[in-house]
Amino acid sequence: MSSENLQVLLAERPVGWVEPRHFTLQRAPVPSPGEGEVLVRNRWLSLDPYMRGRMSDAKSYAEPVALGAVMVGGTAGEVVESRDPALRPGDKVVGMLGWQRFGCVPARALMKVDDSRVPLQAWLGPLGMPGVTAWYGLNRICEPQPGQTVVVTAASGAVGSVVGQLAKARGCRVVGVAGGAAKCDYVRGELGFDACVDYKAGRLGEDLKAALPDGADCLFENVGGEIFDRLLGLMRPFGRIALCGMISDYNATEPYAMRNVRAVLVQRLKMQGFIVSEHMELWPQALRELGAMAAAGSLRWRESVAEGLERAPEAFIDMLRGGNFGKQLVRVD
Amino acid sequence: MSSENLQVLLAERPVGWVEPRHFTLQRAPVPSPGEGEVLVRNRWLSLDPYMRGRMSDAKSYAEPVALGAVMVGGTAGEVVESRDPALRPGDKVVGMLGWQRFGCVPARALMKVDDSRVPLQAWLGPLGMPGVTAWYGLNRICEPQPGQTVVVTAASGAVGSVVGQLAKARGCRVVGVAGGAAKCDYVRGELGFDACVDYKAGRLGEDLKAALPDGADCLFENVGGEIFDRLLGLMRPFGRIALCGMISDYNATEPYAMRNVRAVLVQRLKMQGFIVSEHMELWPQALRELGAMAAAGSLRWRESVAEGLERAPEAFIDMLRGGNFGKQLVRVD
Repeated sequence: MSSENLQVLLAERPVGWVEPRHFTLQRAPVPSPGEGEVLVRNRWLSLDPYMRGRMSDAKSYAEPVALGAVMVGGTAGEVVESRDPALRPGDKVVGMLGWQRFGCVPARALMKVDDSRVPLQAWLGPLGMPGVTAWYGLNRICEPQPGQTVVVTAASGAVGSVVGQLAKARGCRVVGVAGGAAKCDYVRGELGFDACVDYKAGRLGEDLKAALPDGADCLFENVGGEIFDRLLGLMRPFGRIALCGMISDYNATEPYAMRNVRAVLVQRLKMQGFIVSEHMELWPQALRELGAMAAAGSLRWRESVAEGLERAPEAFIDMLRGGNFGKQLVRVD
Repeated sequence: MSSENLQVLLAERPVGWVEPRHFTLQRAPVPSPGEGEVLVRNRWLSLDPYMRGRMSDAKSYAEPVALGAVMVGGTAGEVVESRDPALRPGDKVVGMLGWQRFGCVPARALMKVDDSRVPLQAWLGPLGMPGVTAWYGLNRICEPQPGQTVVVTAASGAVGSVVGQLAKARGCRVVGVAGGAAKCDYVRGELGFDACVDYKAGRLGEDLKAALPDGADCLFENVGGEIFDRLLGLMRPFGRIALCGMISDYNATEPYAMRNVRAVLVQRLKMQGFIVSEHMELWPQALRELGAMAAAGSLRWRESVAEGLERAPEAFIDMLRGGNFGKQLVRVD
């Protein structure tokens, strides 16, 4: 086991696209836990679009990462040393320890998880923040009825793949939007969506209309931009839109100008933005349902794994451009 | 009493701004009521922005008016002849008899009203569709708490003026947006709003920020376009937006391109469009509350009256350009 800590720090705030120079790699001593704290060795780091927002100091729902500080991020790992009776060395835990090999946090900031029935890193994906995000937006905002049509963007991703599978389990017709034939094949073939539109195929408007001949009752929106705008124009009366992400805007210097907002009025839509971490009280219920599906083998997911913390910046940059296929993880060496 | 009917028909579908040539004036015999029907002489016609939508055959929530048909519209008048025991000659009634002097409809399509404590035409304004629209959007979508900030556009208008007064009665800070110093003076002085921004003053961005130094918890949106887009950027976390109208778009050939939709995500907003006629079950409750306020003198409103049905087209066109000041009515001669 490595005896030194490795950390990725925020070196510079990006304007537009993120580049490797916005990060610095730093070696440091392994920290010691204080009273009530736990030293964790991270095995997996989750890379997520929200991190782009934390790199910026623009007005947002969360404090930005300070320059020179360790990048924020969800992690799964094991307890090395504990100064709290609630956790013991060897326990598997998830938390928000950031882009580093070792971290010390109070025990109450960690959730002990069971990796006997699902792999440890599933607690960062379908059984973690992305899975609960999917569960919350679908169940609390979209509220689809059996037989209704649900459309989800970034459909092969960590959130979108769970949204679609939950909606199928509820008896909905489910249409995905994803980038490229391989992702669309996966969304239809492996995840069981009824249809998937490849937004890179160059016929976005026609293809969306063909996949949604009667429009959509629910939209779970992860992408923003032109795709979102076109889907707004395809919503059915009284449709619900869970606005979960607008990744296409995160790296743009100018926001995409939306032309179909009038549909919210004309079709009497409800559109709601949400951040799943503000609804922690629902995590136990969501994880019970998702965990049961995962253990039964009826929840599928896919991972993109970058090997080694040094590769986290490039993997993150690639993900922002849609280069990942499934949940983006870093295996922390 | 005139013995001939006068009607305004839709002659042509407008593209962009409405013009007088889109209407035709027609004289016709007074119709006779069939069994169960009532002949009404209209005294007042309400002019409302939604009518612009009915002139178009673009996809919307309501059927368009047919070419050559009488323009749709809310009316207040008196029963001339009744073939239903529920109504008698002389009864005052409101209904949707359209842009005409006389109309026959089933008695059940009319609401008998009391004009002893409020003038008859109030049933087309604060006690009619505009008032109930204000009541519904504020109470069922915005749900402001005492001390919160509510901003309303078209603040001197039939809907906006009621929204602001209801919100003040709930203990909110209320900011209006209106066009011109006279309307803003009225909104502050007569209606009692805390502040009013004149969107014609040429400093829209700065003036909105100054009137909303801590942002807005609720937005009641009647206008759309640049004002709506800027207000989106001033919403506080968990804000609610009742999307009631986008009059600035109705006559544009291209919809306004919205740049701040991302605020729905970043600030976790709820935005909902609605059409008050789809919530008829709430009219009795709304009218009880609004009627009590009106009878007590604690609900103020203002009217713009066009004299004679012949003037309805020009008054409607003027209203679409913001030329009216308060509820736009036509006194039917």
